[in-house]
Amino acid sequence: MPNTYAILGTGALGGLYGGRLHSIGKEVHFLCRSDFRSIEESGLQIQSPWGDLNLQDVRAYDSASAMPKVDVAIVAWKATANDALSSVLPHVCGPETCVLVLQNGLDMEADSAAIVGENRVLGGCCFLCCNKTGPGKIHHLDYGKIAFGEYSPEYRGQTTLRMQEIASDLEAAGVPVLQSRDLALTRWRKLMWNIPFNGLSVALDADTSQIMTAPDSAELAHLVMEDVRLAAQACGVHIEPEFLHKLLEDTRRMVPYASSMLLDYRHKRQIEVEAILGNAVRKSTAAGFVPKYIGSLYKQLRFLDERNRAPDSPPS
Amino acid sequence: MPNTYAILGTGALGGLYGGRLHSIGKEVHFLCRSDFRSIEESGLQIQSPWGDLNLQDVRAYDSASAMPKVDVAIVAWKATANDALSSVLPHVCGPETCVLVLQNGLDMEADSAAIVGENRVLGGCCFLCCNKTGPGKIHHLDYGKIAFGEYSPEYRGQTTLRMQEIASDLEAAGVPVLQSRDLALTRWRKLMWNIPFNGLSVALDADTSQIMTAPDSAELAHLVMEDVRLAAQACGVHIEPEFLHKLLEDTRRMVPYASSMLLDYRHKRQIEVEAILGNAVRKSTAAGFVPKYIGSLYKQLRFLDERNRAPDSPPS
Repeated sequence: MPNTYAILGTGALGGLYGGRLHSIGKEVHFLCRSDFRSIEESGLQIQSPWGDLNLQDVRAYDSASAMPKVDVAIVAWKATANDALSSVLPHVCGPETCVLVLQNGLDMEADSAAIVGENRVLGGCCFLCCNKTGPGKIHHLDYGKIAFGEYSPEYRGQTTLRMQEIASDLEAAGVPVLQSRDLALTRWRKLMWNIPFNGLSVALDADTSQIMTAPDSAELAHLVMEDVRLAAQACGVHIEPEFLHKLLEDTRRMVPYASSMLLDYRHKRQIEVEAILGNAVRKSTAAGFVPKYIGSLYKQLRFLDERNRAPDSPPS
Repeated sequence: MPNTYAILGTGALGGLYGGRLHSIGKEVHFLCRSDFRSIEESGLQIQSPWGDLNLQDVRAYDSASAMPKVDVAIVAWKATANDALSSVLPHVCGPETCVLVLQNGLDMEADSAAIVGENRVLGGCCFLCCNKTGPGKIHHLDYGKIAFGEYSPEYRGQTTLRMQEIASDLEAAGVPVLQSRDLALTRWRKLMWNIPFNGLSVALDADTSQIMTAPDSAELAHLVMEDVRLAAQACGVHIEPEFLHKLLEDTRRMVPYASSMLLDYRHKRQIEVEAILGNAVRKSTAAGFVPKYIGSLYKQLRFLDERNRAPDSPPS
């Protein structure tokens, strides 16, 4: 079993999963940015349907240089922060460390693989409704399963020993896990939700319930989702049409949810438009399918994101 | 020459063209709605690069029932007001009256043709930057040409006598005119601009200059415009690709312009989404081409328009 973990990015996602691992006695090292002072002093407070946690004795760092080598480094910050990987990973990675990339989007493992080698990298998607409500304060609303697997084509189709060990730790910490033998499939299935609902939430300034209640936006979500399915197919990843209908129905029944991209947008933070939409557009276009519904949303989001972060931007 | 005109809808467009015809001595009857009192008392004030007009002796009506039969009835209100046509046209139309429909969109003549018969209907597009700045106050910024032609397939390819006569009146009033032998072509060419720039202006809350300055929105305008060209083609209307490049370049050089649809949206008025986008989507889809960039924008606009006019809608 891995005994030591590094959480790279202690936001909603990193705080929740790292906090759960910490609570079962794993040695967890949290790399923090803006919240470092607060977490060092007051720890992490997690409100969650899995049980609330008030963790006072948290190992917090404001710089990777003070962190030890760990068994598993979990990349938990947003894809937009990946420029920092090259200065951070060398501090926490020894020769046996594996890197688990829990970021939204497509092919997010490439940045880490370029540093530690693709055989050391795993990737995963988190099906999670969770927000940071203040420094060190995390509100987990719903869901939370992690579907993860090996990144290297060498291990495709396998459930490796390290996967099983990480899964055991997470399950012991109360986190539902799915061990994926096909990470590309897992990622595209996640994009089936993320592209329409992150994308439309920003383009329309609407939560999931508003999108699914109005017939026009619900139809548009369906069209965008089908575009993702066809884009995946062009990339050699087969997703059955029934999955699309299930996702739409699940979303319709979901608690009204402002997507993480919408929250980022409202707070004038950079949105993960490249990781979530841009890479999907580029990969499927290169494979011969031009996804027009995704592409339209992609260009709109880039425009909105740029204007939103301009110095003279009005309050959103 | 026609001697009497009815202007149905004395907004920016109706006020400008009706005012010009009035100023050369034509008998013009203006049907007004919200501005009736003001126009009856203070007339029309038109600020225009063609020369300012201050017209005090304007024949204004708040109901069609008091209006006389005229030679030419010009439908100048927005397509969203067309429900009123069936109660208005019978008052101003005698057996020889022709109806000139100057509305944005596709196949806007059908509503009038259903009432007076398609042989009595002409249609036209106005290439006009013009806003109403107050009751009876019109600010004409730029352009202003009217391209119009016969609606009935019976007259396709012809420049009929009544077209020539109306053109003479308009030209005498200082309005540039193009007599079109192919109204469908004229309308689709107008949609080439209206669909991307009205549509994106609302979806992105941006004027023409903002759209053409940012690379992503400029590319998207290009993609939407090409979609309109292909939709027209599916409907049997050929528009050369060079026209697209000319339109984009002209727009890039234009005075920054908030489209009429954006102004309507900001004032929480119903937007002409069906006339401008909906009809184009339906016609080309029926003809076998699904215009995805237009369709995507269409569904977004319907969602935004509905939310915008909901009773509890926040200020836009």
